[in-house]
Amino acid sequence: MTYCIGISLDAGLVLTSDSRTNAGIDHVSTYSKMNVCDTNPDRFIVLMTAGNLATTQSVVEQLRRDMREQASNNLNTLSYMADIADYIGNILVNRIRRYTETSGFVPDASLILAGQIQGGNVRAFMIYPQGNYITTSEETPYLQIGESKYGKPVLDRFIDRATSLEDAAVCSLISMDSTMKSNASVGPPIEVLLYRRDSLKEDRHYRFGADHPYLISIRQEWAHQLYRGFRSMPSLPIDQN
Amino acid sequence: MTYCIGISLDAGLVLTSDSRTNAGIDHVSTYSKMNVCDTNPDRFIVLMTAGNLATTQSVVEQLRRDMREQASNNLNTLSYMADIADYIGNILVNRIRRYTETSGFVPDASLILAGQIQGGNVRAFMIYPQGNYITTSEETPYLQIGESKYGKPVLDRFIDRATSLEDAAVCSLISMDSTMKSNASVGPPIEVLLYRRDSLKEDRHYRFGADHPYLISIRQEWAHQLYRGFRSMPSLPIDQN
Repeated sequence: MTYCIGISLDAGLVLTSDSRTNAGIDHVSTYSKMNVCDTNPDRFIVLMTAGNLATTQSVVEQLRRDMREQASNNLNTLSYMADIADYIGNILVNRIRRYTETSGFVPDASLILAGQIQGGNVRAFMIYPQGNYITTSEETPYLQIGESKYGKPVLDRFIDRATSLEDAAVCSLISMDSTMKSNASVGPPIEVLLYRRDSLKEDRHYRFGADHPYLISIRQEWAHQLYRGFRSMPSLPIDQN
Repeated sequence: MTYCIGISLDAGLVLTSDSRTNAGIDHVSTYSKMNVCDTNPDRFIVLMTAGNLATTQSVVEQLRRDMREQASNNLNTLSYMADIADYIGNILVNRIRRYTETSGFVPDASLILAGQIQGGNVRAFMIYPQGNYITTSEETPYLQIGESKYGKPVLDRFIDRATSLEDAAVCSLISMDSTMKSNASVGPPIEVLLYRRDSLKEDRHYRFGADHPYLISIRQEWAHQLYRGFRSMPSLPIDQN
């Protein structure tokens, strides 16, 4: 399983991903799911991946090859982030279809594309296995792929467009912590990337291993705060009506 | 959708359920999903239901009819809670199969059975649409049916066998609140039943409507405590390594 979060804020982007992949619980490996694309300096593009690893690796490989071979459509030639979402969606659906036809097995995958092209807005898209995509809204400034439910309540509570990059990063780590506690197939290292609007380069890129003191402090402090909050909840009423 | 929680503690049982059913988002109704069975006084039995409403209603109807008609197997004649789980599992799988054969549609449902028979232990079971079932363990003293993921992290954090009935009830309401915040098809009234070990009758049975002051105070206080906890989390490190 996988868990990736893409948050699109007034201040820029916060992208967070785990690194555990598994093909059955007896085949667990560690792969980064955050690809900072090596594009021209007029743009900053990140692709996070969830689902079948063969599919997502072949999509990333194709994106690199199209840039290297200067295909007419590639990450450097397209002028809008939405066009890039379309281009990547096409590659994704073709890859999935190819292996479905030969094997009957559907190697599904979902992607989060986020970034900015000079002169354009910061954008984030979630690309479905069918090749279509959605973006964020004023009310829902984040996207999730993979094991999204355990960690959703905390995002719903704390994230809005005006949240700072730093606060959103902490919130995404809490969301990741809740997910790791309930699903053993989501695991560290946890990557967190902060992108500041109009900078066209990454601001900070953390990679927290399981024993990183900050990841441990987040886990312990959140547990402590929740416990303390729970202890101060109002008691059940005596009256049952 | 539905969300029901059954918690089996040293002190007894805490059972919590929502009341929203929907057949598509344009057909939303309110039905209690907590059935306190009208058995002989030597036993206390509750059945919570999730899934297809026609299926779960026909199961409950059959249980009542078997008692009324004094069938050889009914809720009053069986000597062990596990036998009752088996008996209900059989009814469930037969109902699902009947409608699957005639329509092709699989009207799945899941159940939580909980209670105690005089001289026996307090037990809780989750019964699958296939008719088989699992029970709680020392480490995992709770069972969930329906929309279980949003509300699971808080149960994992606060519930163990030694938790009091009152604390477990508050925790189940927080779990329900997180679920309602993230899934609009789970909704009030919220029922909470407390059962004390060996009492063979319900201790308290709350039914909290959406505007019940206690449900509102739980929602507000938990939001406040989470916000306060979030504000006191350690800042992102400056060093990225």
